[in-house]
Amino acid sequence: MSEFYKEITPAGFGIAIKQKQVLFSKQSPFQKVEIIDSDSELGKILTLDDLMMTTEGDEFYYHEMISHIPMMHHKNPETVLVIGGGDGGTVREVLKHSSVKKVVLCEIDGMVIDACKQYLPTIACGLDDNRVEIKVEDAIAYIKDKKDEFDIVLIDSTDPMGPGEGLFTEEFYTNVKNSLKKGGIVAAQSESPVVNKNEIKKMYKLLKKVFPICAAYTSPIPTYPGGYWAWAYCSVDVEPLSYYADNRAAEITKSCKIYNKEYHYARFALPNYLKELLENC
Amino acid sequence: MSEFYKEITPAGFGIAIKQKQVLFSKQSPFQKVEIIDSDSELGKILTLDDLMMTTEGDEFYYHEMISHIPMMHHKNPETVLVIGGGDGGTVREVLKHSSVKKVVLCEIDGMVIDACKQYLPTIACGLDDNRVEIKVEDAIAYIKDKKDEFDIVLIDSTDPMGPGEGLFTEEFYTNVKNSLKKGGIVAAQSESPVVNKNEIKKMYKLLKKVFPICAAYTSPIPTYPGGYWAWAYCSVDVEPLSYYADNRAAEITKSCKIYNKEYHYARFALPNYLKELLENC
Repeated sequence: MSEFYKEITPAGFGIAIKQKQVLFSKQSPFQKVEIIDSDSELGKILTLDDLMMTTEGDEFYYHEMISHIPMMHHKNPETVLVIGGGDGGTVREVLKHSSVKKVVLCEIDGMVIDACKQYLPTIACGLDDNRVEIKVEDAIAYIKDKKDEFDIVLIDSTDPMGPGEGLFTEEFYTNVKNSLKKGGIVAAQSESPVVNKNEIKKMYKLLKKVFPICAAYTSPIPTYPGGYWAWAYCSVDVEPLSYYADNRAAEITKSCKIYNKEYHYARFALPNYLKELLENC
Repeated sequence: MSEFYKEITPAGFGIAIKQKQVLFSKQSPFQKVEIIDSDSELGKILTLDDLMMTTEGDEFYYHEMISHIPMMHHKNPETVLVIGGGDGGTVREVLKHSSVKKVVLCEIDGMVIDACKQYLPTIACGLDDNRVEIKVEDAIAYIKDKKDEFDIVLIDSTDPMGPGEGLFTEEFYTNVKNSLKKGGIVAAQSESPVVNKNEIKKMYKLLKKVFPICAAYTSPIPTYPGGYWAWAYCSVDVEPLSYYADNRAAEITKSCKIYNKEYHYARFALPNYLKELLENC
């Protein structure tokens, strides 16, 4: 094995991590699943089809942002659907909200869940909570007939290729919208503003067709392409920053490494080039 | 030459960039100066002692932040001192402010200036402006007897080791403070919140001893360690966000790739771990 795990984006640059050993490597029916132990502050790493999904050392930059931003704009989120997210990090964050009664994790690949439970317990730790219902199935089929069911839907998908491709279509977004209760909010990972500008454009074009309210928010993620990530915030009836759950703020902030109210509000202030890109799609 | 230029931080991970050729490589009296042509969207890269300083492709993430944040909190910045910053990117941004009458660039290493003028003209383009006075000398000596001279001082230094080491001391910061006019503001690059926590702690401890007002702001930089960077904002009499130069906002925003007022204000919202680190130093 080479000294470095490298992930180079089509932009010609990327991340290099000192690696120690591959702890797990198997081909599932959907993708290659690997857990690599790094010789770095990042600790263990989950990769799918040779793309880094999460690391023990910096996973909180992603998981706190995909979950608490939409959750804190909802008055009383009780039922939450997480699509993808088999590592469990998003579920762990959602469960921090005392209002939550039920979280459905719909992950197509059971091998991801099993590998993360075994090798990444600090990330997967919420998956055994009795409020969590795990569906190992295709979210495209799962969401099809759901009406008025979820307060929050979090699309914690892989990139728009391979098994995640169908999670970036107008039909899928429409079904997600229909699955929302009144006051419901969707957050979806939406790639890197640095190296995935075309993918962002395509995705927001579709989201804007489906959702009356569609905004983007961003935050740094050290190990993701470009070190800078975007998420889509979508809703039928709740503008971002129009309501904030001050009653839950203290408990959530206390349990987080980055999340706080000021940091939350600041996420929606976008750089010029991203504002322009989103206005033109 | 190997396929990748790699820069691995002490945290065990870092950046890898496809490289084409070394265009310039010389040892100056202070450091090794190199310009590398990459096979990536980053274009050409300046390295000093094998550490990346700037790239054509992502330099604006750094230069817009070190300059416009302090400049826009000043009512009428006329005289500006840039310490280090031999690539010229910070000077280029400072010159966008119509109020500016004089910019002194104090860079210890003339070879950096010459190499950047030759190989990185889109970054160094401001250095020939007739408002710019270039001093190829040690900023530690230069600043010593300056009193009441600058509206803005920007410490655009290398890391706290090698030739940049003396730019991270209490004595130096005191001299910088004394060089400020009334209403003056200092911004200083202050390393990565992801991989340089100890360096940040040391630096802000000293800055807080010297400056009555000391805050941190952050923004992503794709090619810097951790993809996420911090700058110190220091002043004797101007709190951050207490004044904003709305009269200059349109011209500056129009000329920038990321800078705008909302993005500016959002920079001071820090993640919990950085807030705690700064409160405890």
